[in-house]
Amino acid sequence: MNWYNIYPIIQMAIEEDLSWGDITSESLIDPNWTIELILYLKQDGVIAGLPVAELVFRELEPELEWTAHQEDGQFLTAGTPLASISGRAQFILKAERVALNFLQRLSGIATLTSRFVTEARKGSSTVRIVDTRKTTPGLRILEKYAVRMGGGHNHRHNLSDGVLIKDNHLAIIAKAGKSVKETLISAKQKIPHVMKMEMEVDSISQIPDALEAGIDVILLDNMNCEEMIQAVKEVQGRALLEASGGVTLKTIENIAATGVDIISVGALTHSAPALDISLDYQ
Amino acid sequence: MNWYNIYPIIQMAIEEDLSWGDITSESLIDPNWTIELILYLKQDGVIAGLPVAELVFRELEPELEWTAHQEDGQFLTAGTPLASISGRAQFILKAERVALNFLQRLSGIATLTSRFVTEARKGSSTVRIVDTRKTTPGLRILEKYAVRMGGGHNHRHNLSDGVLIKDNHLAIIAKAGKSVKETLISAKQKIPHVMKMEMEVDSISQIPDALEAGIDVILLDNMNCEEMIQAVKEVQGRALLEASGGVTLKTIENIAATGVDIISVGALTHSAPALDISLDYQ
Amino acid sequence: MNWYNIYPIIQMAIEEDLSWGDITSESLIDPNWTIELILYLKQDGVIAGLPVAELVFRELEPELEWTAHQEDGQFLTAGTPLASISGRAQFILKAERVALNFLQRLSGIATLTSRFVTEARKGSSTVRIVDTRKTTPGLRILEKYAVRMGGGHNHRHNLSDGVLIKDNHLAIIAKAGKSVKETLISAKQKIPHVMKMEMEVDSISQIPDALEAGIDVILLDNMNCEEMIQAVKEVQGRALLEASGGVTLKTIENIAATGVDIISVGALTHSAPALDISLDYQ
Amino acid sequence: MNWYNIYPIIQMAIEEDLSWGDITSESLIDPNWTIELILYLKQDGVIAGLPVAELVFRELEPELEWTAHQEDGQFLTAGTPLASISGRAQFILKAERVALNFLQRLSGIATLTSRFVTEARKGSSTVRIVDTRKTTPGLRILEKYAVRMGGGHNHRHNLSDGVLIKDNHLAIIAKAGKSVKETLISAKQKIPHVMKMEMEVDSISQIPDALEAGIDVILLDNMNCEEMIQAVKEVQGRALLEASGGVTLKTIENIAATGVDIISVGALTHSAPALDISLDYQ
Amino acid sequence: MNWYNIYPIIQMAIEEDLSWGDITSESLIDPNWTIELILYLKQDGVIAGLPVAELVFRELEPELEWTAHQEDGQFLTAGTPLASISGRAQFILKAERVALNFLQRLSGIATLTSRFVTEARKGSSTVRIVDTRKTTPGLRILEKYAVRMGGGHNHRHNLSDGVLIKDNHLAIIAKAGKSVKETLISAKQKIPHVMKMEMEVDSISQIPDALEAGIDVILLDNMNCEEMIQAVKEVQGRALLEASGGVTLKTIENIAATGVDIISVGALTHSAPALDISLDYQ
Amino acid sequence: MNWYNIYPIIQMAIEEDLSWGDITSESLIDPNWTIELILYLKQDGVIAGLPVAELVFRELEPELEWTAHQEDGQFLTAGTPLASISGRAQFILKAERVALNFLQRLSGIATLTSRFVTEARKGSSTVRIVDTRKTTPGLRILEKYAVRMGGGHNHRHNLSDGVLIKDNHLAIIAKAGKSVKETLISAKQKIPHVMKMEMEVDSISQIPDALEAGIDVILLDNMNCEEMIQAVKEVQGRALLEASGGVTLKTIENIAATGVDIISVGALTHSAPALDISLDYQ
Repeated sequence: MNWYNIYPIIQMAIEEDLSWGDITSESLIDPNWTIELILYLKQDGVIAGLPVAELVFRELEPELEWTAHQEDGQFLTAGTPLASISGRAQFILKAERVALNFLQRLSGIATLTSRFVTEARKGSSTVRIVDTRKTTPGLRILEKYAVRMGGGHNHRHNLSDGVLIKDNHLAIIAKAGKSVKETLISAKQKIPHVMKMEMEVDSISQIPDALEAGIDVILLDNMNCEEMIQAVKEVQGRALLEASGGVTLKTIENIAATGVDIISVGALTHSAPALDISLDYQ
Repeated sequence: MNWYNIYPIIQMAIEEDLSWGDITSESLIDPNWTIELILYLKQDGVIAGLPVAELVFRELEPELEWTAHQEDGQFLTAGTPLASISGRAQFILKAERVALNFLQRLSGIATLTSRFVTEARKGSSTVRIVDTRKTTPGLRILEKYAVRMGGGHNHRHNLSDGVLIKDNHLAIIAKAGKSVKETLISAKQKIPHVMKMEMEVDSISQIPDALEAGIDVILLDNMNCEEMIQAVKEVQGRALLEASGGVTLKTIENIAATGVDIISVGALTHSAPALDISLDYQ
Repeated sequence: MNWYNIYPIIQMAIEEDLSWGDITSESLIDPNWTIELILYLKQDGVIAGLPVAELVFRELEPELEWTAHQEDGQFLTAGTPLASISGRAQFILKAERVALNFLQRLSGIATLTSRFVTEARKGSSTVRIVDTRKTTPGLRILEKYAVRMGGGHNHRHNLSDGVLIKDNHLAIIAKAGKSVKETLISAKQKIPHVMKMEMEVDSISQIPDALEAGIDVILLDNMNCEEMIQAVKEVQGRALLEASGGVTLKTIENIAATGVDIISVGALTHSAPALDISLDYQ
Repeated sequence: MNWYNIYPIIQMAIEEDLSWGDITSESLIDPNWTIELILYLKQDGVIAGLPVAELVFRELEPELEWTAHQEDGQFLTAGTPLASISGRAQFILKAERVALNFLQRLSGIATLTSRFVTEARKGSSTVRIVDTRKTTPGLRILEKYAVRMGGGHNHRHNLSDGVLIKDNHLAIIAKAGKSVKETLISAKQKIPHVMKMEMEVDSISQIPDALEAGIDVILLDNMNCEEMIQAVKEVQGRALLEASGGVTLKTIENIAATGVDIISVGALTHSAPALDISLDYQ
Repeated sequence: MNWYNIYPIIQMAIEEDLSWGDITSESLIDPNWTIELILYLKQDGVIAGLPVAELVFRELEPELEWTAHQEDGQFLTAGTPLASISGRAQFILKAERVALNFLQRLSGIATLTSRFVTEARKGSSTVRIVDTRKTTPGLRILEKYAVRMGGGHNHRHNLSDGVLIKDNHLAIIAKAGKSVKETLISAKQKIPHVMKMEMEVDSISQIPDALEAGIDVILLDNMNCEEMIQAVKEVQGRALLEASGGVTLKTIENIAATGVDIISVGALTHSAPALDISLDYQ
Repeated sequence: MNWYNIYPIIQMAIEEDLSWGDITSESLIDPNWTIELILYLKQDGVIAGLPVAELVFRELEPELEWTAHQEDGQFLTAGTPLASISGRAQFILKAERVALNFLQRLSGIATLTSRFVTEARKGSSTVRIVDTRKTTPGLRILEKYAVRMGGGHNHRHNLSDGVLIKDNHLAIIAKAGKSVKETLISAKQKIPHVMKMEMEVDSISQIPDALEAGIDVILLDNMNCEEMIQAVKEVQGRALLEASGGVTLKTIENIAATGVDIISVGALTHSAPALDISLDYQ
C-alpha cells in the first residue's frame, strides 16, 4: 500500500468525526495531561491496518509514541497486545474512534479473506482468491490492501485499469445488432497493449468465440462445479479462468478443485464483520 | 437526510471507481446506444439508499430516466423491482457498481437494524435502538440515515454534537489526581446550554455521583440484566439510561425488558452484511 | 479550540492574499535577509488569536522564532508587546497582513464580549452571555473561540448540533394546519437523546404548551424586562430561559437582573470593531 | 463582481452551518411544505449582496422563486422590502442564516463606505475613497465589491496584483545596508510593465528620492493635514498621493480638502457593523 | 475521453486565469451586451479538444450557443471555421484564453501524432504509435486523448495501471544481490491477473530470461534497427515488442519496418508545438 | 517564485501519476532498499525547476538526500550533472517521472526564452522579452518563473492583475454604439489606482485617442517594423510600446531595433520543446 494515497482518506475520516471539536475531551481533559494506552485484540483474527491507525493518532497527536508489537498480516488470538501508545490524552482520545474504525474494518476483511484462502487451499494449491469492486465507497485502496494481508490477491482496482466485459455489455452489443465477436476484436485494437481483456460467460458455448477474439481471462458466472470442470477442459490453458458468483466458505473448496485459476469473492469486502479491537488504559 | 451533504461522498466514490475512464465501456459501447434496466432485490430486506443510487446514476448520465417502484424504509421480499432506469448505456454502466455499492451497504444496515428493533419490541414498546460512532469512515451520514430507515434512532453524530464521558476519560481524570465529580460539574459550566451530558459507568456505585453532577444520560457499559434492572431502580427517571456493549439479536429482548430507555448497538453499522441487489437487463 | 480544524481556514486566507506571489517583497527583499519584529497592542482590549497568528507566520516561514509575551483571554492596555518574532524577512512580511487580520478581528470580538459580560455581571452573577450563528461565513469556529476568550459561552455551533425552533418554523407548522404542540412532541421522538430542544416564544402565553411538549430551553424573543420577569415566574426552573433580541451594553444589566439563565447577543460577532494591533520593526 | 468566483465561498458557508443536516427543520417540517417570505431592511443603509443571498437560497432550494425589489448600491430606509422569496420551507429555512450573514455584513460595509464618501465629497469632488487588505479572511472579493457598492474604490486586491513598499520593507533594506533608492530602481526593472509602484513615506523628505526612483503612487502614512498639503505641493502631479492611517468620519473632509488623490480607510472592512436585515413570514 | 473527469481540470484552469475577476472586461463591457464569434484554424493540422473548449465557454457563460462545424480527429487546413459561438460578450471574453490554451495544445499534440503515424505507416501497416508518461503535469487524460485523435494509441496511463520494469529497477535488484529472473517470477505472482508485465531491455541477451519469467511485452531501449530486427527474430511472437528512445519523424519509418509491434514516442506530448487557432469577431 | 503556491501543483501531479500505487516498484523493490542516482543534462540548455524537482522527490521520500550541483537560470552543456540524490529506491522511482516532467518542461521554456533574449539583445540593449497568458493550464506560475530564469520578463499573470484591452473588446464597444475613447476614460475611473491600462492597436491611427484616454501601454498587434518605427515616433515616450504577434527567433532582432519597449512572445510557453534530462544509476 502506498501511504501517500491514504492521507486524504484519513483526513476525511478525522474531519467527519471531529468537525469543530471534541466537546467532551476539551471540557474535561487538560491539554497537557499524558496517557499510556494499549491497543489489543478482543477476538481471534488476522490484523490489518496498524500503520493506518498509527497515522490517525499521529495526525492528531504529532508527539505520539507508538510501539507496534505486531505486524499486519498475522493471525493472532484474542488478548494479544497490538501496540502501545502514549502522548497527550486529549489528542489521543480524539483520534481513538477513527483509528479503531479503520483497524476493525480492515482486520475484519483480512480475517474473512484468510478463512476463504484456507478453505480454497484444501482444493487447490495454486488458485488465487481475489476481491471485486464491491468495496466500501472511498476505502477501496485500504480494503484491497486488507485482502492481500489476508492472503488474497487483487482483481482490477477500478474501471480504468482492467477490461472486464460483463453480461450487460454483451446484452447491449446484441441489442444494437452487432456481432459480439467482431466487437471484441475491434475493442482489442483500441485498448492499451499492457492490458488483458477479461469476459464474463454464463455458458460454456460462449467460450470458443471468446478465445478466437483473443480474450485473455474468462469469468465463469454462477456456474456449478461440473460446468467449471468442463470449461477447464474446453480452454486447455489458452486463457485464465475465474470462477465468480455466490462463493461461500462451504463451496470454495470444491470450486478450487475444479482447476479454475482464480476465484473472486465479493463478500470479502462487502460483508466482512468488524474484528473486535480495543484501546484500554493499563 | 440532507441531500446537499452527500454529493461530495458520491463524487468521491465515482472518482474512485472511474479515475480517468472506463476502458471496457468506452472501447465496446457506442456513446449513443440506450438501454433500459431494472434494479431489483435478490434477498428479503429493508431497502435504504434509493435516492443515493439515483444521484449516482444521474451524476454520470444527466439524461437518465428513473422510475422508483419502492421507497426507502420498506421491508421487501426477494425479486421485488426497486426502480426502472433508462438512458445511454455507456454512462449507466459506468455508474452501476458505485450505485449498487451504496445501495447494498445501506440496505444491509437498514435490514439488520430492523431485525434488532423487532426483537427489542418484544421486550419494550418504547426503548430506542441507537447506532454508535462505529461507522465506516466517510459514510457516517449515510449509515445513520440507514439506521433510521430500519426503525432505529441516532446517537450523537460525532465528537462535536454530544458529550459522552467514557471510561478512558474517567481514568485520565483519576490519574491526574482530580475529583471526577468536581470535574463533571466544572465541565457542565462550559458546555453549550443546548447539550446534555452523558456518562459511561461500569458499576452501579458510580450512579449517585453522576446524578449529583447533573449527568443527563447514563451509559451502562457491559452490565448484565440484573445490574441494569438495579440501575433503573436507582435512577428513578432522573436520567436516561442507555445499555451498551455486546448486544446481539439474542440478548436484546431481555435487555429491552429491563426498562432502560436506549440500547446502542455498534454492529448495526460495523458488521451488517450487504443486502444483495442487482441491475439487470430485461 | 481544536487547532486541527483551523488549518484549512489559515490556508484559505493565505491563498487569498498571496495568490501567485508577493511582488513587492520578492522584488525588493533578498530571501535570506532576516528580521526581528514586535507584535503589540495599540488599543486597550482582550486579546484572542495569538496561536492563530503564530500558525499563519509559521505556515509561510517554517523557521520562525516566536516568543509569546501574553496569552489569549487577557485584558491588556495599549502598548503591550504581545509577541516577538524573528525569521526571514520576505516570508514574515508575506504573512503579516493575514496574521493581523485574524488577530484584530478575534481580539475585537473578545473585547466586545468582555464588555457585555462585565455589564451583565452587575445584574446577575450566574447569567451566561452567549453568541449566535450571526458569525462571519467561514470563521465561526474562530469567532466562537474568541467569544469564550472574552468570558462568554457558546450557543449551538450550527444547524446540526442543536434544536432551536424559531418563529418561522412555528408559522409554517400553523400554515400547514398542524398542532404546534403535537408537532413538538413528535419531533422530540425523533431527535437524538443527547440533545435538548429549545423554542423561541414571543408571548408568555406560549410557555405552558412548550413545557408540556418537553421543551428544555425557552428563548424569549424581544421581550421587555417585565415580560421576562413574568416568564421566570411562569417557568419556575422547569426549563432554561434565554433572552434574545437587540441586547445592548446599556440594557444587558437589567436583562440579567430579570433572572433569565442566558442572554444571547448577535452583535458579539456581527458588529465587533477590530482591535488595533501592529507589527513593528524595533 | 465575478459570480463564478463566489460559489466556493457560498459553499464553504453552507457547509459550515449545515454540516450533516438541520435537525430542527428536518424533524418539524415536511419537505413538501412551501412558504413565502419577505426579506426586508430593519435599519437605514446601502444594500449590498442581494445576488449573493439569492445564490445561497438557490443552492439549497433549486426550485426557489426570487423576486428582487431593490438592487445593490441603493440607499434605502428601514422597512423597505428587498426581495420576496418562495419555495419549500425546509430548504429556505436551512439557507436563511447564511444568506443573512452575507447580506448583513456586505450591506454594513457598503453603508459605512457610503458615509465616508459623503463626508469626503464635502472636501473634494474627485478624491477616491479606497479599501485596504484589512478584510475578513476568505471574504475579500465580496467585501471589496461591497466597498464599490457604497461608492468607494478598490486598492490592490492582494500581494500579487500591486506593489506597495511599506515601512517594514524600507527598514529591512536599510538594515541590510542597501541604498533604498537603488533598490527601488532595481525592483522597477523586475516588476511587470503593467504595474505601478506605490511607496509609503512618513516624512516629506522621502518624496524626492521616491520620485527619482520612478514611484508612481506615494502613500502618506499618518501625516497631518499640513504635511499632506506640503506633499501635494512637493509632488506637483508627478505621482498620485494616497492618505492613510486612522482616517475617521470626522477627519476625512479635511483630508480630502488637502488635495490628495486617494484616501484609504481600513475601517471600511475591518470595523463596519452589520446592517440589520430580516426574513419574515408575511 | 470521459468528460466527467475533465471538469476539475477546466475549473482549475479557469481559476488560474480568472482569480477574482477580469478587470478589463468588467470595466469596459456591459454584462448584457452579446457577441458572435468564430473559432477558426490559422494553420493546417489535426484538431483535438473542441468539446473541451465548449465546456470552458459554457462554464463561464451558461447561456452560450455553440455550433461545431468540425469534429475532433480531423485534418483541416488553415482558415477552416471550427465553431461559431454566441452569448454575452463579457463572459465569452473571460473564457477565451483558457479555451484556446486547451485547444491549441491538444491540437498540437494530435497534429504531431498524426505526422508520426503517417511516417510509420510507410514502414508497417500494423505498428502502433503510442505515447508515454512524459505528459504535462495535470493534463495527462487530455493529452492521451489528443494522441488518440491523431491516430496514436495509449501506453499505460500511470504507475497504477501497468507494469513496466525499467533499467533503474533492474539496477536496484542487481545491487541488492537478487536474481532478476526470480524477482520477476515472484512479482508475477503478486500483480493482478488482468495485467501484463512489460520489461525494458538494452541488450538482446536479456530477452531469453525475460521470456522465461513470463514477460508479456519487451521494451527495446535505444536499440538500432539491426538490433530490433534481431529481437524480432529472437522473440518469435512470444511477447510484444516495443521500440523506444529518441524516435524522430525521420527514423520512425525504418523502425516500423523492423517488425516491432509498438513504437513509443515521448515527443508526442512533451515537445509538440501549439497549433495556431483564433477566436475572431466576424 | 513562491514555493508555497506550487505545492498544490506538485500534489496534483503526483496524484495523477501515482493514483493508488506503483505496481511495478511495489512488486519488485523492497521498501528498505536504498539507491543513489544522478540527475544530469542530456542536451545543452538553461536549467529551470531544480527546486521543483527536489520538492517532488521529497514529497514521496521525506528522507531524501539531495545535493544540487547547479542552480536555476544557468546555461549548461549536455552531460552536466545537475543534482545527486539518494534515498529509498521504491519512493525515488515513484517520483522520478513527475520530477522529470516538471524539470524538462521548465528547462525547455527557459532555454527557448534565453535564445529569444539573446537575439533581441542584438537589436536593443533594453527591450524586455515578455511572456503571455498562452501557458499550460495549471502551470502558469511555474512557466512564468521559467521565463524569468531564461532572462525574460513577465506580462500580467492573469485577468485579475492587469488591464489589456484587445481587438475583441474594441469590436464589442463599437458594436454597442459607444465611443471607444469615452469608454476608456470611464474605465480608467473604475480600475484600481495601482494598475496601468494597456490597449491593443492594429493601426497607427488609433494611437492619438489611446494617449488622450490615458492609456499607459500600447500593444502593437502584428505590425511590421516600419509601422513600429512610426509608432515609436508618434508616441514619443508618452506610453510604453509592446510589439506582439508572430515573433520568431529570426524576426526579433529587427523588432527590437525599432525602439519598442517590450516584445511579447507566446511561443515561449506554448511551443517550447522539452529539454532532455535524465536520472541515472551511477
